[in-house]
Amino acid sequence: MNADARYMAAAIALSERGRGRTAPNPNVGCIIVRNGHVVGRGWTQPGGRPHAEAMALTEAAEGARGASAYVTLEPCFHQSHRGPACSLLLREAGITRVVIASSDPDPRTDGQGAAMLRDGGVEVMTGIMEAEACTAMAGFFTRQRHGRPHVTLKLATSLDGQIARANGESQWITGPQARAHTHLERARHDSILVGRGTVEADQPRLDVRLPGLENRSPMRVMLGAGKPPKGWNAITAPEDIAGLAGTDFLMVEGGARTASAFIAADLVDRLLLYRAPILIGAGRAAMGDIGLEKLGAAQGRWRLAGARMLGLDRMELYERIRAA
Amino acid sequence: MNADARYMAAAIALSERGRGRTAPNPNVGCIIVRNGHVVGRGWTQPGGRPHAEAMALTEAAEGARGASAYVTLEPCFHQSHRGPACSLLLREAGITRVVIASSDPDPRTDGQGAAMLRDGGVEVMTGIMEAEACTAMAGFFTRQRHGRPHVTLKLATSLDGQIARANGESQWITGPQARAHTHLERARHDSILVGRGTVEADQPRLDVRLPGLENRSPMRVMLGAGKPPKGWNAITAPEDIAGLAGTDFLMVEGGARTASAFIAADLVDRLLLYRAPILIGAGRAAMGDIGLEKLGAAQGRWRLAGARMLGLDRMELYERIRAA
Repeated sequence: MNADARYMAAAIALSERGRGRTAPNPNVGCIIVRNGHVVGRGWTQPGGRPHAEAMALTEAAEGARGASAYVTLEPCFHQSHRGPACSLLLREAGITRVVIASSDPDPRTDGQGAAMLRDGGVEVMTGIMEAEACTAMAGFFTRQRHGRPHVTLKLATSLDGQIARANGESQWITGPQARAHTHLERARHDSILVGRGTVEADQPRLDVRLPGLENRSPMRVMLGAGKPPKGWNAITAPEDIAGLAGTDFLMVEGGARTASAFIAADLVDRLLLYRAPILIGAGRAAMGDIGLEKLGAAQGRWRLAGARMLGLDRMELYERIRAA
Repeated sequence: MNADARYMAAAIALSERGRGRTAPNPNVGCIIVRNGHVVGRGWTQPGGRPHAEAMALTEAAEGARGASAYVTLEPCFHQSHRGPACSLLLREAGITRVVIASSDPDPRTDGQGAAMLRDGGVEVMTGIMEAEACTAMAGFFTRQRHGRPHVTLKLATSLDGQIARANGESQWITGPQARAHTHLERARHDSILVGRGTVEADQPRLDVRLPGLENRSPMRVMLGAGKPPKGWNAITAPEDIAGLAGTDFLMVEGGARTASAFIAADLVDRLLLYRAPILIGAGRAAMGDIGLEKLGAAQGRWRLAGARMLGLDRMELYERIRAA
């Protein structure tokens, strides 16, 4: 990995801090480097402002003159009543080189940010660590491309694919490390959705119960007819997620009918599996009918994107393979 | 790993060559080392004779004089009409040091082999790589301790724990690498068992279809009432495996009722899972009722003992944790 890629990896790590809190803005990360020293760091703040570049420039102050900026997304071109365009800010601060992971598909920028920088004599490079940056900002890109949030489906199962005993007992299949990891994942999503059956059976809080992250609890959404609990949103079909305000990252947590409905509608982008080393036997399966017509049609849809042990349990992450 | 452990690891690897073909004899491995050179190698031959030590001594010939022998199991003490005791053979060949992984629980030996060697002035070490050797000879030890074969349950499932679509379609869930691995595992077992339902629905051959291993196909056993296919054995309950002649390693291949019956009877020692990166939804679950009364009772029973990718599929091996 060369120096540009290393600095961009650090900018991507910063962008993750905003994940699940910046919709409808992208969660961008930015690092400013002068003579091999990081003089400014920024990431999109909750609600979308300040932008990552503005925050990093503030920290760098005079250090930005003659420095390089690493930005996970093309700096914005459009001015807003909430602040000036970042491409202009970078140029005026004396940044002489801007390294960009991905261009911004937003028609208000879409190449114009990079062009303005180049016109001002700034050296611009694009496409550095692009795939990694797009994964970190998947909510923004999914919203831009498909007009809906990026969806993670979480399942916690036994080795034989059960999410509960036949009587519904499901506390606990996985251990404390896996459950803490689930809470961390919640903090990285704008909203969490569960089905009406789960709401009525479990009255789940769906909040983040990790020290220091209590204020990162996402909005809650119920799938199904009827009145949701106070403070919750409700939708009646998976396709309705397109209309969920302030939600670019959505986590679907259960139960089996809800999971099946999202899979059947092909609205799951990321499968987050926790598997405990236990056998349950005839219990409640993780999924119901997903409309599979042939085994062959199930192949080639999911790619293993990551895995780790969490105590005795194994976490696996699969990404939906979609034609470009 | 010191030199003794390295040589013993090589002897254990040789012992695996006899696995599934030596019952009721243990599948022992032996290496003879003189001045840092391996001068003889042996493993228990099909049917149980010659023993590993006899084969290695034949290969070493005069090279055995003053050499060390690494044996995965204590050399036998008892003479038989099929050959002299190995402890006597080693001593008479001039072996001056014998390194043993595990003592032999067979009452006809049980320490007497090592004692005879020591009485003859041979240096004897025991307990080197004992756990690994016992795993390689698990069939023999399970028969000695529990009076039944060592049982491997194989399951090939989707990510959501299904072994087929609802209509029974199961060809194929896993890919060619995983299926080839299953055939290799068959070759390491004396017998394979499936339920009567699987026999009638699939008329499975259950043979080893790997080039060069065609003659390693195990005996076939049906679980259930009724007449088995020609050349098959039949038993009516999982507990009947104790009476299966020539079977110290048994592989259980399906279907769900048979798997559940063996798990419910706590007769599975090794769980061999193949998981394909696909979702099936409402299909046929890997397992039916196993009599689980509480989730807590499912914990602490299985330990991850190995894992690897086979093409796009993941193989996982779990071992039953049993009190010593």
